[in-house]
Amino acid sequence: MAPKYAPSLRSCLAPLLLFLQTGFIVIYAFNFEIKDKVDGNTLSNFFTEFMDVNVMVILGFGFLCTFPVRYGFSGSGFNLLVAAIATQWAIILNNIESLYYRRKIRLDMESLVVAELCTASALVSIGAMLGKTNPVQLILISLLEVSGFILNKWLLQSFLKLQLVNSIMMLHIFGALFGLMLTWIVCWKGSEEPFEKERSDRKSGLFSMLGAVFLWMFWPSFISVLVHDSPERKLWVVCSTYLALAVSAVVAVVVSVLSSPKGKLNLIHMQSCIFAGGVAVGVSISVVHQPWEAMTIGFVAAIVSAIGFRYLKSHMLLAFHCHDTCAILSTHGLPGLLGWLAHLLLQIKDYDDPTMAIRFAVFHICTLLITITLSLSMGITTGLLLKWNFWRPPQHNKCFDDQAFWEFPHLAVRK
Amino acid sequence: MAPKYAPSLRSCLAPLLLFLQTGFIVIYAFNFEIKDKVDGNTLSNFFTEFMDVNVMVILGFGFLCTFPVRYGFSGSGFNLLVAAIATQWAIILNNIESLYYRRKIRLDMESLVVAELCTASALVSIGAMLGKTNPVQLILISLLEVSGFILNKWLLQSFLKLQLVNSIMMLHIFGALFGLMLTWIVCWKGSEEPFEKERSDRKSGLFSMLGAVFLWMFWPSFISVLVHDSPERKLWVVCSTYLALAVSAVVAVVVSVLSSPKGKLNLIHMQSCIFAGGVAVGVSISVVHQPWEAMTIGFVAAIVSAIGFRYLKSHMLLAFHCHDTCAILSTHGLPGLLGWLAHLLLQIKDYDDPTMAIRFAVFHICTLLITITLSLSMGITTGLLLKWNFWRPPQHNKCFDDQAFWEFPHLAVRK
Amino acid sequence: MAPKYAPSLRSCLAPLLLFLQTGFIVIYAFNFEIKDKVDGNTLSNFFTEFMDVNVMVILGFGFLCTFPVRYGFSGSGFNLLVAAIATQWAIILNNIESLYYRRKIRLDMESLVVAELCTASALVSIGAMLGKTNPVQLILISLLEVSGFILNKWLLQSFLKLQLVNSIMMLHIFGALFGLMLTWIVCWKGSEEPFEKERSDRKSGLFSMLGAVFLWMFWPSFISVLVHDSPERKLWVVCSTYLALAVSAVVAVVVSVLSSPKGKLNLIHMQSCIFAGGVAVGVSISVVHQPWEAMTIGFVAAIVSAIGFRYLKSHMLLAFHCHDTCAILSTHGLPGLLGWLAHLLLQIKDYDDPTMAIRFAVFHICTLLITITLSLSMGITTGLLLKWNFWRPPQHNKCFDDQAFWEFPHLAVRK
Repeated sequence: MAPKYAPSLRSCLAPLLLFLQTGFIVIYAFNFEIKDKVDGNTLSNFFTEFMDVNVMVILGFGFLCTFPVRYGFSGSGFNLLVAAIATQWAIILNNIESLYYRRKIRLDMESLVVAELCTASALVSIGAMLGKTNPVQLILISLLEVSGFILNKWLLQSFLKLQLVNSIMMLHIFGALFGLMLTWIVCWKGSEEPFEKERSDRKSGLFSMLGAVFLWMFWPSFISVLVHDSPERKLWVVCSTYLALAVSAVVAVVVSVLSSPKGKLNLIHMQSCIFAGGVAVGVSISVVHQPWEAMTIGFVAAIVSAIGFRYLKSHMLLAFHCHDTCAILSTHGLPGLLGWLAHLLLQIKDYDDPTMAIRFAVFHICTLLITITLSLSMGITTGLLLKWNFWRPPQHNKCFDDQAFWEFPHLAVRK
Repeated sequence: MAPKYAPSLRSCLAPLLLFLQTGFIVIYAFNFEIKDKVDGNTLSNFFTEFMDVNVMVILGFGFLCTFPVRYGFSGSGFNLLVAAIATQWAIILNNIESLYYRRKIRLDMESLVVAELCTASALVSIGAMLGKTNPVQLILISLLEVSGFILNKWLLQSFLKLQLVNSIMMLHIFGALFGLMLTWIVCWKGSEEPFEKERSDRKSGLFSMLGAVFLWMFWPSFISVLVHDSPERKLWVVCSTYLALAVSAVVAVVVSVLSSPKGKLNLIHMQSCIFAGGVAVGVSISVVHQPWEAMTIGFVAAIVSAIGFRYLKSHMLLAFHCHDTCAILSTHGLPGLLGWLAHLLLQIKDYDDPTMAIRFAVFHICTLLITITLSLSMGITTGLLLKWNFWRPPQHNKCFDDQAFWEFPHLAVRK
Repeated sequence: MAPKYAPSLRSCLAPLLLFLQTGFIVIYAFNFEIKDKVDGNTLSNFFTEFMDVNVMVILGFGFLCTFPVRYGFSGSGFNLLVAAIATQWAIILNNIESLYYRRKIRLDMESLVVAELCTASALVSIGAMLGKTNPVQLILISLLEVSGFILNKWLLQSFLKLQLVNSIMMLHIFGALFGLMLTWIVCWKGSEEPFEKERSDRKSGLFSMLGAVFLWMFWPSFISVLVHDSPERKLWVVCSTYLALAVSAVVAVVVSVLSSPKGKLNLIHMQSCIFAGGVAVGVSISVVHQPWEAMTIGFVAAIVSAIGFRYLKSHMLLAFHCHDTCAILSTHGLPGLLGWLAHLLLQIKDYDDPTMAIRFAVFHICTLLITITLSLSMGITTGLLLKWNFWRPPQHNKCFDDQAFWEFPHLAVRK
């Protein structure tokens, strides 16, 4: 029989974290060295953008997840925990190749930034599971997702010779499909009846808005941090991302109003769709050369994302029993696929030679197929692992409730 | 008869936004090019300051407007929508001259920053109308205000040869007078009786404090972003703005306590007046050369602003039926005028030749007269346009209420 | 007889602030000049880090103090006031030596940053007194604490030839001990019975989390801003601080779960201990040369801090009647001492010559002794001064209550 109250975290979470953290320190102790030469100017640029990406990962994703009214502590607190673990893990995995060749891993600002972006892909996946897991499961998800994503990145870079920025930006597609498989497998039973505590109120909506606004504001850094061609190119990436984001904020409002039964706006809907343009432009950034291209991509991405959020989320729940809390399919998956398509079309348009265009198309479709195959299979594997009752997931009526995991001393009789 | 419930936004907001956004994309498609040469160092500086200004416009102004307890979604959400539209519009208008001469508009980081500052002037105006409009009206206000402000900027720069930083910093005076005229015309009737929902509570006050604190912290970037003379000058602008802001935070507290019947502080009062020094120093920045000058300007500005907030706001409501929600007259208008005066006095002090001083004074007074004339006339015109019943403004008892425009699924019986 | 209601702030706070602010402006008017030569690149780096430190001091510390459910306005508002006053005071005191030699104080970005860091030490001390003072007392505490800390910094730099970064980073130890003495002396009587209003709720916990997250995110800037050796060194400081912070976030969760009676997490506990690693690494930064060293320091610091928070806080209240609201002993004091110890051990390990090692140890112990002596004596002096009934501290049942100091117009019958 399942326990009536949420089980104590002591016997499971604490040993797992302690083991992981000690292991990480040991690995870092034997294999890391500091890069000793660095170009001063690069540092200065990287520092600003590293901070922006850090704010997005910790604050943006964290507070975006505070919208369930009784789940704010978990939304922001577990996000910090997962990010702290996953980033350390991603730094190790990203450098495993240089470990093999040089016996040492070089730690520099770029490896930190890339690790944070890999962490972002895990946080996307976790969005689908928000409120339905315990922290032990979140740690496992993040470790496996980051491993899968870095494997995917390595495959794309080694065999298809993709640039770093292109392989990293698959994080939206990878994270979304991984998360969807996960929630589909784990929550197969029990998701028919709605979660009674999955709702927001005026204040939790504003906390979530805060996270959304930080993601929206710093998205240009998120994309430009990996573009190193030239200062002009970097400038252009920032400008066009900003325009794409502005367009998708406007279009998200339009679709939200048009699709609402009473012709009203919806804050959670708006929050989820305002950065669809940023997602899509990120995936296709290396071939976008005109402002209007970025804006058009933002326009279409926001339409796809907002329509998906309104209709696809409930449809998937009914048809596939797939409960996607943050609607990551519409927020990251569909705009990511759209960006992939835009990349294909814009690149083909640039080629004069049809042979080259077909070669590129085949190559580009392979990129997507690898990502989809790997994300789906890793997602299913992780889901089957998590279904194991050993992890003692929270019961259905304890989902979306901080009280399962957090002390509330003020609720006790005396402090 | 007026409709009993707030009318649906579908028939009005969605087509307007769709038309504007499609139009913008078409304009950008035919007329924009990317600046192809850029100095790397300039980019790096601009990038940091662009991000800071972006945070002020989106987060600072947005969350500053969340203080009405039932109007937080609209305060932050409409702000984002207005900023996204107005910035795109301002980029086009700012470059219309180069469109005329070169057939192409060059898009670079500076044009983005200038456009954001023009948007800020629209957001100042909207502060006066907060809670009393629907989003369609907000879009119209922002488009007309930005057009008027850019016309004003163009007049000052073309005919009076003002520097960019000086003409941009008139945004506080222009925005405040425009907004006042607007609220005076639009809310002439009905503002005698107080709005029942115009009040804050503990949490909405803290959200608003968050916005105020971001504006306060990043104000040095807001001013220094347009100062290009030399790195030394930029440094000096940042230091002196910081000092002026610190002084006005202290003095705002003093005046707030002295003018309170019970000798207590008032959070909304404090939030509105802590950056009075930043406003005034911004307007006079090109002649401030000593730290104590900036500090004295901050001192006087905070006194004027805080006294204005306490007494002028209610007086204007009683005497002129002019309901100024965010007290923009005291927050931006009076400190802006004070900064203008400080500019005049400090500049005259620097001249040895009385002829030159008189010439400058005439020239400087012309600057103000043009700004005042244009802002008042544009404000009245916009106000008359908005009074038209076609826009279906919210009824008096629906003002300051998110429920007129936003879905609250948790209030429904089932999700 | 003590007054029944909290006394008006008018007769005390307003004149004090007015006097201080006028005095500061006069001092700045006669003694300051602007540094006229500046290296452009330095400016750019400093600007970013100055902004980050500013965000930590104003937003981070301010919102960290909003956790008491009825004390949010005071937590964030008084923090801004204290920071504005203390920074101006610290700029003067830091430059008093150059005033003596050159008759002029040079104002540049570095003096602003150093002044903000001195302010941070005052804000640490105030953490112990949070909720139990009136703003007049807070102003006095901050002025005296900053004076004491700058005296300490001057002693360490002049007599022991400590580098700036090492003497500044003693701020955690100095601030914690100063604050502890203060609260011990001032609240000797009356702290036996718990404060009825000292508790947090779901939303105030999230506001506090926001402050904690900003401190956590920008901590690398907090340390790296004073490291000027080389860009490589700066890079390394940022990376290792980030790793130490990540480790301490994870370990804080582990200890929090292990030490909880029900095996649950505690948000306030977590917030206080996630940056223990940053504190300890900051104190020992000049001798940390390997990533694993930083991570190990973060590991141990988080254990010490989290255990201290759970057991020491209540023990100190029972045994010494010392009520430490924000548990600054565990949050800043113990990790600071640990960092000092790590500095000693790592430095000794580097010396081949035992004579040098012993010389360094004596010198290093002197550093600590001077800091402890000065902080304890200044804390006791300040405490005795504050005990004086003239300042009219809030009564026991008015502690942790905004209504003692802030107007709540919405609670009145009519606005």
